[in-house]
Amino acid sequence: MAWDFSTDAEFEAKLDWVRAFVREEVAPLDVLFPGCEYLPLDDERRAIVDPLKQRVRDEGLWAPHLGPELGGQGFGAVKLTLLNEILGRTDWGPIVFGTQAPDTGNAEIIARFGTPEQKERYLAPLLAGEIFSCFSMTEPQGGADPRVFTTRARREGDEWVIDGRKYWSSNAAVASFLIIVAITNPDVPVHHGASTFLVPRDTPGVVIEDSHHVFGAHHHEPGHSLVRYEGVRVPADALLGHEGRGFEVAQSRLAGGRLHHAMRAIGVAQRAIDMMGQRARSRFTQGSSLADKQFVQGFIADSYTELMPFRLAVLHAAWLIDTQGEHAARTDIAALKVLTPKVIQSIVLRAIQVHGGLGITEQLPLVDMFTTGLALGLADGPTEAHKVNLARQLLRHYEADDPAWPEEFLGRRLAAAREKYGDLVATVPSVPAGPPVVQPGV
Amino acid sequence: MAWDFSTDAEFEAKLDWVRAFVREEVAPLDVLFPGCEYLPLDDERRAIVDPLKQRVRDEGLWAPHLGPELGGQGFGAVKLTLLNEILGRTDWGPIVFGTQAPDTGNAEIIARFGTPEQKERYLAPLLAGEIFSCFSMTEPQGGADPRVFTTRARREGDEWVIDGRKYWSSNAAVASFLIIVAITNPDVPVHHGASTFLVPRDTPGVVIEDSHHVFGAHHHEPGHSLVRYEGVRVPADALLGHEGRGFEVAQSRLAGGRLHHAMRAIGVAQRAIDMMGQRARSRFTQGSSLADKQFVQGFIADSYTELMPFRLAVLHAAWLIDTQGEHAARTDIAALKVLTPKVIQSIVLRAIQVHGGLGITEQLPLVDMFTTGLALGLADGPTEAHKVNLARQLLRHYEADDPAWPEEFLGRRLAAAREKYGDLVATVPSVPAGPPVVQPGV
Amino acid sequence: MAWDFSTDAEFEAKLDWVRAFVREEVAPLDVLFPGCEYLPLDDERRAIVDPLKQRVRDEGLWAPHLGPELGGQGFGAVKLTLLNEILGRTDWGPIVFGTQAPDTGNAEIIARFGTPEQKERYLAPLLAGEIFSCFSMTEPQGGADPRVFTTRARREGDEWVIDGRKYWSSNAAVASFLIIVAITNPDVPVHHGASTFLVPRDTPGVVIEDSHHVFGAHHHEPGHSLVRYEGVRVPADALLGHEGRGFEVAQSRLAGGRLHHAMRAIGVAQRAIDMMGQRARSRFTQGSSLADKQFVQGFIADSYTELMPFRLAVLHAAWLIDTQGEHAARTDIAALKVLTPKVIQSIVLRAIQVHGGLGITEQLPLVDMFTTGLALGLADGPTEAHKVNLARQLLRHYEADDPAWPEEFLGRRLAAAREKYGDLVATVPSVPAGPPVVQPGV
Amino acid sequence: MAWDFSTDAEFEAKLDWVRAFVREEVAPLDVLFPGCEYLPLDDERRAIVDPLKQRVRDEGLWAPHLGPELGGQGFGAVKLTLLNEILGRTDWGPIVFGTQAPDTGNAEIIARFGTPEQKERYLAPLLAGEIFSCFSMTEPQGGADPRVFTTRARREGDEWVIDGRKYWSSNAAVASFLIIVAITNPDVPVHHGASTFLVPRDTPGVVIEDSHHVFGAHHHEPGHSLVRYEGVRVPADALLGHEGRGFEVAQSRLAGGRLHHAMRAIGVAQRAIDMMGQRARSRFTQGSSLADKQFVQGFIADSYTELMPFRLAVLHAAWLIDTQGEHAARTDIAALKVLTPKVIQSIVLRAIQVHGGLGITEQLPLVDMFTTGLALGLADGPTEAHKVNLARQLLRHYEADDPAWPEEFLGRRLAAAREKYGDLVATVPSVPAGPPVVQPGV
Repeated sequence: MAWDFSTDAEFEAKLDWVRAFVREEVAPLDVLFPGCEYLPLDDERRAIVDPLKQRVRDEGLWAPHLGPELGGQGFGAVKLTLLNEILGRTDWGPIVFGTQAPDTGNAEIIARFGTPEQKERYLAPLLAGEIFSCFSMTEPQGGADPRVFTTRARREGDEWVIDGRKYWSSNAAVASFLIIVAITNPDVPVHHGASTFLVPRDTPGVVIEDSHHVFGAHHHEPGHSLVRYEGVRVPADALLGHEGRGFEVAQSRLAGGRLHHAMRAIGVAQRAIDMMGQRARSRFTQGSSLADKQFVQGFIADSYTELMPFRLAVLHAAWLIDTQGEHAARTDIAALKVLTPKVIQSIVLRAIQVHGGLGITEQLPLVDMFTTGLALGLADGPTEAHKVNLARQLLRHYEADDPAWPEEFLGRRLAAAREKYGDLVATVPSVPAGPPVVQPGV
Repeated sequence: MAWDFSTDAEFEAKLDWVRAFVREEVAPLDVLFPGCEYLPLDDERRAIVDPLKQRVRDEGLWAPHLGPELGGQGFGAVKLTLLNEILGRTDWGPIVFGTQAPDTGNAEIIARFGTPEQKERYLAPLLAGEIFSCFSMTEPQGGADPRVFTTRARREGDEWVIDGRKYWSSNAAVASFLIIVAITNPDVPVHHGASTFLVPRDTPGVVIEDSHHVFGAHHHEPGHSLVRYEGVRVPADALLGHEGRGFEVAQSRLAGGRLHHAMRAIGVAQRAIDMMGQRARSRFTQGSSLADKQFVQGFIADSYTELMPFRLAVLHAAWLIDTQGEHAARTDIAALKVLTPKVIQSIVLRAIQVHGGLGITEQLPLVDMFTTGLALGLADGPTEAHKVNLARQLLRHYEADDPAWPEEFLGRRLAAAREKYGDLVATVPSVPAGPPVVQPGV
Repeated sequence: MAWDFSTDAEFEAKLDWVRAFVREEVAPLDVLFPGCEYLPLDDERRAIVDPLKQRVRDEGLWAPHLGPELGGQGFGAVKLTLLNEILGRTDWGPIVFGTQAPDTGNAEIIARFGTPEQKERYLAPLLAGEIFSCFSMTEPQGGADPRVFTTRARREGDEWVIDGRKYWSSNAAVASFLIIVAITNPDVPVHHGASTFLVPRDTPGVVIEDSHHVFGAHHHEPGHSLVRYEGVRVPADALLGHEGRGFEVAQSRLAGGRLHHAMRAIGVAQRAIDMMGQRARSRFTQGSSLADKQFVQGFIADSYTELMPFRLAVLHAAWLIDTQGEHAARTDIAALKVLTPKVIQSIVLRAIQVHGGLGITEQLPLVDMFTTGLALGLADGPTEAHKVNLARQLLRHYEADDPAWPEEFLGRRLAAAREKYGDLVATVPSVPAGPPVVQPGV
Repeated sequence: MAWDFSTDAEFEAKLDWVRAFVREEVAPLDVLFPGCEYLPLDDERRAIVDPLKQRVRDEGLWAPHLGPELGGQGFGAVKLTLLNEILGRTDWGPIVFGTQAPDTGNAEIIARFGTPEQKERYLAPLLAGEIFSCFSMTEPQGGADPRVFTTRARREGDEWVIDGRKYWSSNAAVASFLIIVAITNPDVPVHHGASTFLVPRDTPGVVIEDSHHVFGAHHHEPGHSLVRYEGVRVPADALLGHEGRGFEVAQSRLAGGRLHHAMRAIGVAQRAIDMMGQRARSRFTQGSSLADKQFVQGFIADSYTELMPFRLAVLHAAWLIDTQGEHAARTDIAALKVLTPKVIQSIVLRAIQVHGGLGITEQLPLVDMFTTGLALGLADGPTEAHKVNLARQLLRHYEADDPAWPEEFLGRRLAAAREKYGDLVATVPSVPAGPPVVQPGV
């Protein structure tokens, strides 16, 4: 079988349920409990959110990113894309479906590398959505380049002692545990000298120095913390995976996560287009509806023209993951990492423009959606790093050739044509002397 | 079954054959007989081209756009896309495979609307690639807007008499016949008052006043003619389809054609990327390979990031045509009409830049490929018209709402949330007073 | 005298003083009293701000936008540009120099159209920076298109009675008075049927229904209000200018204001470039300084390449205003209205990208600067409206010609050349048959 | 005196003359003798061109780029800009005014570095427009990077012997002499080991292997040659400037030339805008004039918005050259090198789009103008090289600072504000607890 862009009827029915459920039940949470997605549930929130989560479980849709062995649905990445593009229209959707970053990735890490005890203590409540977690890798002085990392973990007897400082440790302020990447051997290249640790949040020496917020975020959000690790002692089995292989652990987590963002980005962009469409039909100015103005038509046409192929590209990458594994999808994942922030930014900017002054106020979600676009161009490495990475992968397919005259140089092509067909023609090239004879019709 | 991005193994094997055949046998024709694709075969060309066509027939790949009833393969649009993206890398590919515009569309018209006699006289040799044809609709004073058309066809006894002037009648200078759209009833809106006619090229009164060429084209190419119809008399059965329904005939032809261009555009763009890749690896300047420079890496990454989703979008539109018909695909076809020239132009411009001065000479095909990109933004209507068309289709999905405060306005959303969940919370919105409590780790 | 891009030494010395003063004394206010620029001075703010204002007065730089008759300096627009580009680097600069929007424009209106009593009561303290004001024109249902305005002012005896609703009435919450545009005669086109009124803020019936904030703004800022006018009664002399000429009054205010934004935008953009430059030099990743990476070099080069010509264009428009009046500058003002938000947005986006995750937090001013860019594309009318306006002005210079073949059509040009020089040449065109003779050098 | 954007009346009168002269007398040459600008005058061309040149001389406008010591006008760069933007609207304008590249630059080189004998033999007829010249530096294997140059000049007795191969040697096929940059000392860095030579075209060993043409160029144009130097012997005084200082000689030539291109580019772009404006007014489609369609209005508005500031930037760079010398202008020259091709390309692409299919034919000059835009992004080094160069110049103004928290980091700014004003306020930051008090008006 080949080339099929349809969703099977059974899953499409589930998606219909999700669409209605998200629109009717989940979307109101975004304005009811704004910025509270990552706060432990208080009684009020629990009274509303727990029943919603139960309905998701009842529909067999809880934790859709996970395999059945972890209590998930084993949907695979394509179906997850179809789900996530709906969930991405809301802030609370991922929480209500148990599929929010970074907990998805952190759960994967514990599931793959954790001890039975760690799994019991952290994985179960994490999968149940009862606790939150933090991935603590980036350092303030050097962004995502591990070669400048200075946070150290030293073995002392049966323990590891961690010292250093991490930045952009999202949700550290509410996390029950942190997954930390630290240098365990500074004498070898960092990709063989770093290790990953699971550190309970209440371990002595874990100090949150400050929490920075994305511009415009609510200050009750946990934000992105600057965390100091000051002689933090953890037992030997806090090490996740092998010593010195910390980046393999971290990488295993990033690939999926990157695609999750892209999946949800479809929903963000589609929501902006829907807002534009409704506004264009509703608003009358300068003698006609906005929908009749070419500039607005251009905004809508351009937005669809960007989003539609992007969505297919996400589904394609997801299909590669499902059928050939993450490695086979890595070129496309890199391309989507480049494309995701761009698609959101350009579509949301148009939506803002169509909404006029109202569009930039906090009365509409548009600027917030735009900053999501900005964040996706920086989180997990800046767009520029992904371009370099993508180009390197692509360039491997080409070999160096004559530096002066490339293969498509006319001289080389003529020589080849001469060799191939030269005995059949008198001259190379063989072209008529004049324009085609036009026989007058009169 | 659902979501499958693979090609079945049997067809993939055919594609492998096509790739090798086009690269080895067909590509040399582009430099051997440049600009001669639409010239009737002289002995030299025939000696080389006819055997190639025969090999294509032997492989069961001749006229791949046609159904079996017309001697084609009945592949459908998805497989045609996979083929055309290979053929699009060359000028001669479509000719050698019997699938070149505008003859593809003109053959469809005759097949659907022609008399048995017309089919015998024109369709058979057209399908065999022995004659060429012209579609003559655009008028010099008004581009593709039929409302300003003035070419008239009047019924006189058993004949139609056509008078007027058409522009951009491609290949008129070599065509055996022209398909003409003329006003038959000026008193009704043009979409009910125009009719389509088949006019043999040697009919008295068919005068080619001039033939314009795309900048840089060879002057032995037939080009795009300005044709005067001066009392041209054709019999009653020269009318194709019903009187007054000329645009339905014309439209039936355009839809497929638009997608054909998009299919081949994939090949054009991929060729430019391949040229960039090879050049980047071959060229050393300012202390390192071009492949090591971020600007060039960015060019390559951006090009892949544009082309990969575009290709999927073409395949998706093709699949819609195959499974649900052309009407279902019209939104995506409009989007692709907008996107096709843009993708070619931006990728080819980067390829030119990577090739330096050589890139703009006639020694490389790049500027010619760029003008193809320009042409695709104007042929079959300018990009701007397609944007308007696309936006109108998309805007139909939205209804007018409150002109001042849209559905996503915070006030409206809060009111809805209050109604839904207000009895469960003390205040709306319900948010914590301060930042999340951070318990110090020391 | 002609073409001189220099600033006279005396004024340059003043600018040096301003640069140091703004950097050392004013810039700290932005973090000390964030979002408080338009709040009436409390004791703390007054203790710091009043002495700074006095120093500005002592330097002869207070209210630099005003003519000497209003207590200003009569600098003219060019010098104002040179000043404002420095002030634009800070939020508090315009306040400390007495040149903040919208009070600048509102003061102009009262100065031109107010009664002596209005001038005494409002103009003097406004010019002194002691009170704030509001311009209340936009309506919620129709943006800036006056044709959909419904706010009415009716004459009753010696009074005007105003009823209606206005939106985006910036600073209404702190204003001492509002300038309102209302329909006084609904039976004539709005440009002859609207009038402008000065309404004290404490007039009964002036109700602030809500104040919206630009996303991310501090909630203690006055914001942009939705104001209801409910039977608001003002005396006859509240009318500013002539009855029915309300838009002339409003327009007289907008032109200058638009350029003020552009002037300050230079400073915003230059600040972003400076941040990029410093970061690029300070940050080391992937084996080299950011300053050595082509992507970052491209960001900086592109930013300078955008800003430098923009700055000259603002100065040029200012010079036109100074030497030939605002009317002569209106084409360039429209172009700058289009360009200003674009320049800020694209430069600030690059600066964000260079700062990584930190760049999108509230710890740096970058996203706030970006929303300034967004606001400038919507305030005083959206970019799209300015493009239409600009194009209409430019298109007046052209006349309709032959719809089919334009003046530059080769056929027409050849005919003209033949007429001009045809008797001197044998053929037209007259070109050599072959390539230039290359005499071999060996 | 300061800031003046006007042209003095006397020169403005000259410009008026030039405008009319170019439009009436010179423009027809572009279609009469297309592509013949650099062909030695035959009798027909001479009969028309010589009198035109004489009229230019009579007006005191001949060779306007040169100082009076060389028979030029000493206008300086600003006036030259004002002239060149007119000449740039035509192909023949620079020839008729004696100011065409590369002869302008080559004349400068001989004037500065030539022997009296060289000046007599070459400079005089070059300045008189009677001979042409070639600058031969680029090599096929390495573009404009001199570090990969391999062409050698060896001293043998009283002679230099040159061996090597150069590419993109424009006009070599018609040149009377070539100026060659060759390595004279391969053991030192190329900037100290290359020298510049004047080589008469008919010197034995100067072999033009091939001449490449920009796509679409007439094949009777001299094009850009691949030149082989095979044991070419020239006398000792063929060396221009000092041995080993060849790049200073070459650079001295490039700076001006770069700005000349930018000057003429203004005219190219303005011509495209004029074509768009006329077409927009002349063409009626889909129920209204093109001039009434927002997409077209957007094209025109965007084009003006690009060109107007660009023009001012060229004039500003010219003024810097005139008042402070070329070195002072080098940042702006680099920026203009980046901007020039971009401005032409984007404006001309819009003009093509407005002209529909006609726009891409050889019947209009638009695609040719576009390729000029392409050429200007590659000649004298690609845009990318100029961006790197520009960024390096700009980055010199910044110093490295704290890699983690830049100067504008909120924490650093708060600390500074606290130090400056902390004794005057109770808290830092000092902000009101709630929104501004809004006193209800009712």
